[in-house]
Amino acid sequence: MTSVQMSAGDELLEKYLDCCSRGDLEKVSVMMSHSSELMNQRGETGWTALMFAARNGHFELAKLLLSKGCDTTTTNRSGQTARDVALFWGHRHIARLLSTSRDHDTRQVLSSRAVDEPENYFNREFLNRTSDKRTHSEWLAAKRSSPETVFILFHNLNPLVTSRAEDGNDGRSDMTLCKLTVSSVEQLLKKSETVVIFLGVEKQERCPNPSVWQEGDGLVAWFALNTENDPTESIKAKDPNSFFLNGPMPGLLKLSDDDAGVIAQARSVLAWHSRYSFCPTCGSKTKVEEAGYKRTCLRAGCRSLQGVHNTCYPRVDPVVIMLVIHPDGNQCLLGRKKIFPPGMFSCLAGFIEPGEMIEAAVRREVLEESGVQVGVVQYLSCQAWPMPSCLMIGCHCVAVTTDIKVDENEIEEARWFTRQQVIDALVKDKQAVFNMPPRQAIAHYLIKHWIGFNSNL
Amino acid sequence: MTSVQMSAGDELLEKYLDCCSRGDLEKVSVMMSHSSELMNQRGETGWTALMFAARNGHFELAKLLLSKGCDTTTTNRSGQTARDVALFWGHRHIARLLSTSRDHDTRQVLSSRAVDEPENYFNREFLNRTSDKRTHSEWLAAKRSSPETVFILFHNLNPLVTSRAEDGNDGRSDMTLCKLTVSSVEQLLKKSETVVIFLGVEKQERCPNPSVWQEGDGLVAWFALNTENDPTESIKAKDPNSFFLNGPMPGLLKLSDDDAGVIAQARSVLAWHSRYSFCPTCGSKTKVEEAGYKRTCLRAGCRSLQGVHNTCYPRVDPVVIMLVIHPDGNQCLLGRKKIFPPGMFSCLAGFIEPGEMIEAAVRREVLEESGVQVGVVQYLSCQAWPMPSCLMIGCHCVAVTTDIKVDENEIEEARWFTRQQVIDALVKDKQAVFNMPPRQAIAHYLIKHWIGFNSNL
Repeated sequence: MTSVQMSAGDELLEKYLDCCSRGDLEKVSVMMSHSSELMNQRGETGWTALMFAARNGHFELAKLLLSKGCDTTTTNRSGQTARDVALFWGHRHIARLLSTSRDHDTRQVLSSRAVDEPENYFNREFLNRTSDKRTHSEWLAAKRSSPETVFILFHNLNPLVTSRAEDGNDGRSDMTLCKLTVSSVEQLLKKSETVVIFLGVEKQERCPNPSVWQEGDGLVAWFALNTENDPTESIKAKDPNSFFLNGPMPGLLKLSDDDAGVIAQARSVLAWHSRYSFCPTCGSKTKVEEAGYKRTCLRAGCRSLQGVHNTCYPRVDPVVIMLVIHPDGNQCLLGRKKIFPPGMFSCLAGFIEPGEMIEAAVRREVLEESGVQVGVVQYLSCQAWPMPSCLMIGCHCVAVTTDIKVDENEIEEARWFTRQQVIDALVKDKQAVFNMPPRQAIAHYLIKHWIGFNSNL
Repeated sequence: MTSVQMSAGDELLEKYLDCCSRGDLEKVSVMMSHSSELMNQRGETGWTALMFAARNGHFELAKLLLSKGCDTTTTNRSGQTARDVALFWGHRHIARLLSTSRDHDTRQVLSSRAVDEPENYFNREFLNRTSDKRTHSEWLAAKRSSPETVFILFHNLNPLVTSRAEDGNDGRSDMTLCKLTVSSVEQLLKKSETVVIFLGVEKQERCPNPSVWQEGDGLVAWFALNTENDPTESIKAKDPNSFFLNGPMPGLLKLSDDDAGVIAQARSVLAWHSRYSFCPTCGSKTKVEEAGYKRTCLRAGCRSLQGVHNTCYPRVDPVVIMLVIHPDGNQCLLGRKKIFPPGMFSCLAGFIEPGEMIEAAVRREVLEESGVQVGVVQYLSCQAWPMPSCLMIGCHCVAVTTDIKVDENEIEEARWFTRQQVIDALVKDKQAVFNMPPRQAIAHYLIKHWIGFNSNL
């Protein structure tokens, strides 16, 4: 709201949303018959009519809005759809109503209702990896010199970004990856110390430039570059407001969802190159192949050249992260590490060991870190975490013992928190006894999902 | 059955099991009132009364047997419990009846009914890893010289085993890991080329030897050794029937469940040592630390010595493996690689890439390999696969397109198979149009579980 005075349109919208919030079916119907465009508009708080209906459990109103063709995919400033809001506040019947029908149909084919797949931060697939192109050297060379191609640049694994100062501290993204063209990076591309990897092609075609288009396949390719020497001097046409992030956190959590998805892939692969320049099997130097997805030993006769070995391919470290639920169903176990910001508690987590399954790793880590024994484990959702290259496998699990005995080498403190204490932390109430992990972390989702699925509110 | 004549006891048991198979409640009750021991006995086929009730859908009989305290954990020669049998033949009401009540209670605490956790081959946790002991050098030294301690031995990653010739081709395990004592391996332990890793301690205490017991903590430790030079000469007191497996397959699939669980851990960690002897960051030599769970660069000033880096720790490669279900719910997509045994088709699979989530990897791999697009994905179960160190993440997923276009670099053929074709293959019917993957592979479970959960039989 830039003006002190509300416009007549704004006023009407706020009145309409107020009626939705209260579930006043009659007034909502009348207002929509006059101004149908109100239905999908977002008010001052960023919420739509459907979100208010979902928040306050107005089932009939949600049905009415759906029957009028209301958009169910709109998100509020926290990235939640109306369905997310319904789940969060425990209105499961409304959440079911808002499930997309196609998903619902195909789920019938599975043995038990598949859990919803949330789009966690870092997981957006903005690009299609098109891995078949990685061995297609002519295609890659053509794309590397195409003016349509997008290059993103890292210095010591820190990406070049610009900050949009107008966005404040409201949790919205305020960083943007700098998308460079070949003319800006051609000097860097020539340097041998620059690592270049192919990321993929854009899924949604951008508005094409017809003159270029006719020569190519219409695919917009993306590459990522990393260099350990300061590349500032080598970049042409650099935005004066751009800068390299100073370490991954918290900067990497401030990107848009599209940019975060690109970073998850690019930074993981580049971090592998920066740590795995030498052949682990014989210690020799290696060369980069397959557009950055393989490193091959340069010593003839090395064992790694016979057969296929994981030494030649990027590494992904699977990690379990879990919300432990008390046997009474109304408390959850959270812990804090010394390195956490003050007051923050989060889910327990740990690396999966060789020869171990997910469920066993959950039980072992919880027992080691907190002394609590776990029974049933349920996988919920996962998240790529490119610091440097983890796959966070998110689970809920149920404790069968409740006494806590913390391993102080691992965590500083672990406590059972009640449902109300978690809700206070989620809504950042003044009474909150702890702080939640950031919403970009899967731990946040695991905790919020627990509150959502059978809230007593 | 060693004798041609059946004993009177055997005859009674076969008659009793026949009544169970037919669901003759009255006769079963009468026979049990005279001979209560019949209830948990296994007949010539290895099946119990409860399994026959589960096989043929006799709900009341299953209830009767449970009320008498029948053992629900007994398994047949294929390692199936009565509950597995019920699921396989589509009698879900009986399967539910046979679910353990504790699991059922704790599952209520979760948002949706957690899927059952099958015990896949390689996943048995016979040992407790006790990772806190890995940095406890005195404790480790004491255990390495204790006569109670168990050593298992590998030569080029192939374990030393003995074969029990009396077991035939009925699918039961016929290999046993050789469990050696310190006196047999002390020469090998002294050689610098021998890699020694600590595996953990036995969960179930073995019958103690009191004279040794009083000095120690009562924990039986296990270590694994690998050497690239033939160690046969160095081993004392070796069983004359023992031998090193010749390659991992199919030998590693013929072990008991306990041994398979030990191998999963030991071979994965040893394979890492054999491939990662040099620092990938600088190419220098490394030394083994933390009882075999860390390798540290020997070059002062190496970047890997500052902070924590995955280069120093064993690698686990996450892989997705998935059964793609046709949108009609009655067909599934299986593929075959050239290296498969003749006629075998199995689930599609592939490595998770850096920055990718499980569900995205499932969709990408299915699309790449078969041209089929996938919608909903549901995690079911996972399996350690120590060749060399994979975590197989098993999913069901639902296709949204059905045209197949195979990537011939990846697989030779992919086809939709009907439910009946899969059942024929499962029961090895003469009419079967393909062969199932071995029951030790999670692919087998993913396929069988699909047949089980809503079979029309």
